[in-house]
Amino acid sequence: MTSPKTEYRLPFVTEMEIRFGDADAIGHVNNVAFFRFLEQGRVHFMKAGKGNLSGSGIRDFPYVVAHSELDFVAPLAYDDIVVITMGIGRIGGSSFVFDYELFSKRSGVMAAKGNVVMVCFDHDNNRSMPIPEEFRSTLKEYLTDPV
Amino acid sequence: MTSPKTEYRLPFVTEMEIRFGDADAIGHVNNVAFFRFLEQGRVHFMKAGKGNLSGSGIRDFPYVVAHSELDFVAPLAYDDIVVITMGIGRIGGSSFVFDYELFSKRSGVMAAKGNVVMVCFDHDNNRSMPIPEEFRSTLKEYLTDPV
Amino acid sequence: MTSPKTEYRLPFVTEMEIRFGDADAIGHVNNVAFFRFLEQGRVHFMKAGKGNLSGSGIRDFPYVVAHSELDFVAPLAYDDIVVITMGIGRIGGSSFVFDYELFSKRSGVMAAKGNVVMVCFDHDNNRSMPIPEEFRSTLKEYLTDPV
Amino acid sequence: MTSPKTEYRLPFVTEMEIRFGDADAIGHVNNVAFFRFLEQGRVHFMKAGKGNLSGSGIRDFPYVVAHSELDFVAPLAYDDIVVITMGIGRIGGSSFVFDYELFSKRSGVMAAKGNVVMVCFDHDNNRSMPIPEEFRSTLKEYLTDPV
Repeated sequence: MTSPKTEYRLPFVTEMEIRFGDADAIGHVNNVAFFRFLEQGRVHFMKAGKGNLSGSGIRDFPYVVAHSELDFVAPLAYDDIVVITMGIGRIGGSSFVFDYELFSKRSGVMAAKGNVVMVCFDHDNNRSMPIPEEFRSTLKEYLTDPV
Repeated sequence: MTSPKTEYRLPFVTEMEIRFGDADAIGHVNNVAFFRFLEQGRVHFMKAGKGNLSGSGIRDFPYVVAHSELDFVAPLAYDDIVVITMGIGRIGGSSFVFDYELFSKRSGVMAAKGNVVMVCFDHDNNRSMPIPEEFRSTLKEYLTDPV
Repeated sequence: MTSPKTEYRLPFVTEMEIRFGDADAIGHVNNVAFFRFLEQGRVHFMKAGKGNLSGSGIRDFPYVVAHSELDFVAPLAYDDIVVITMGIGRIGGSSFVFDYELFSKRSGVMAAKGNVVMVCFDHDNNRSMPIPEEFRSTLKEYLTDPV
Repeated sequence: MTSPKTEYRLPFVTEMEIRFGDADAIGHVNNVAFFRFLEQGRVHFMKAGKGNLSGSGIRDFPYVVAHSELDFVAPLAYDDIVVITMGIGRIGGSSFVFDYELFSKRSGVMAAKGNVVMVCFDHDNNRSMPIPEEFRSTLKEYLTDPV
């Protein structure tokens, strides 16, 4: 077994338990579940970064997903832990990009990599809005280093 | 806020992260997700109790669910942690019962209680089988105290 | 192969496609997915019965699940269609019971049976409320025949 | 209301019911559920195209997902039907590409578009394999017209 990885390229690192229910009939974690991991990684990031996410209120989540993509590199088992590493790849006026690299905690092997484009969104008025300044500062702290 | 509960009636206690994706359009954790929590609690129990669950092999999970029920007592928020407490309510020849009480970690409030009847199952021959003796011993260590 | 069943004990009959994602690593439809079928059966019932469910508004779904239980009788394959049959088992002041029997469309075999207790709920004031009269009339049309 | 669309750019057209459980706490179909729609669209395609998918056997699904991406164009409601349109964007030696455009059946509006790269995979020997000739012929019938 490869020894677990302790250094990651992307600056925000979080972990989550894989569930038995994330696997499919092939026996590995289903490709759709990986996108659930991305989403939950964002919840961790928002909580850590105070992204206007005050808790259980729906309106406190002023973001929508505009684009999402992943390369699937290696399978994950349902009884492993996924290490979700994230960085901010680009910051625009109302949109920003999360870069992602996901790893098996057990083996240290990369399982998937990709990115998600988020747009700040005013749910009440149903339109995009500029990134709030305080959140923009948070995003800048997590910029992905150029390769 | 109620102070978090530190003592539980049922002897096996484990925790898991609730995911944003466990909530539904009403804004609370969906009733179906609670049954996912029960399943993942069983994975924790099997890992802790060495229930012939050697890892990723499908045949190493020689159990099927025969019955499952829950009373929903109080809602859970998606950004809470669910405390899953479990005990063994009955041990038969090939079947046994998991008692469950689920709590909000944040508030200590009970969210749901119920039970699941499991049957030891020989997937290769497609029939029930007696509880393996070693596993029976494990089950006995976690018997639910009478109320 | 048993010929498909054309008569059912419970008066409301609906169907839904099983998804590949409803199966788990054992290769059958996961027990948790069955509770998803119950929920979607209720959506079909509400749409057919005009249960104050006007469409996409969350407040138009004035019900919560108080109890849910299933006996798992036979496995379902992910490429089958599930026939969800439902009846109203009891009507109280603010609560009522859905009886359920689920079948494989392909084989006609019963896959699961159980019931769900619903409570009419005023989400705005966070408390139960009496069953609206118009909906009570609808429920009466679907009473389960005594066995 | 826009009248439903009856012509689509991509040659394979299928539909599926959106479930209440596909929505999230924001009230729309969750972005992760869209990738579930892509997967189920592939199941429909494989069944229609005889893609070596003989039914419930896991080994009969000799494909893995190598890449998946979507642009999210407009929200979907949980009580709508999603029209999944698909074409084959590229056929290589062992890989091929599904192009996707997803629509709301109710409004005819495009909800998402993207593509998924599949690799033919020999699960028994854990390696990619050439596209079987019979399946290659099927794929050619569904090539995406150039824009």
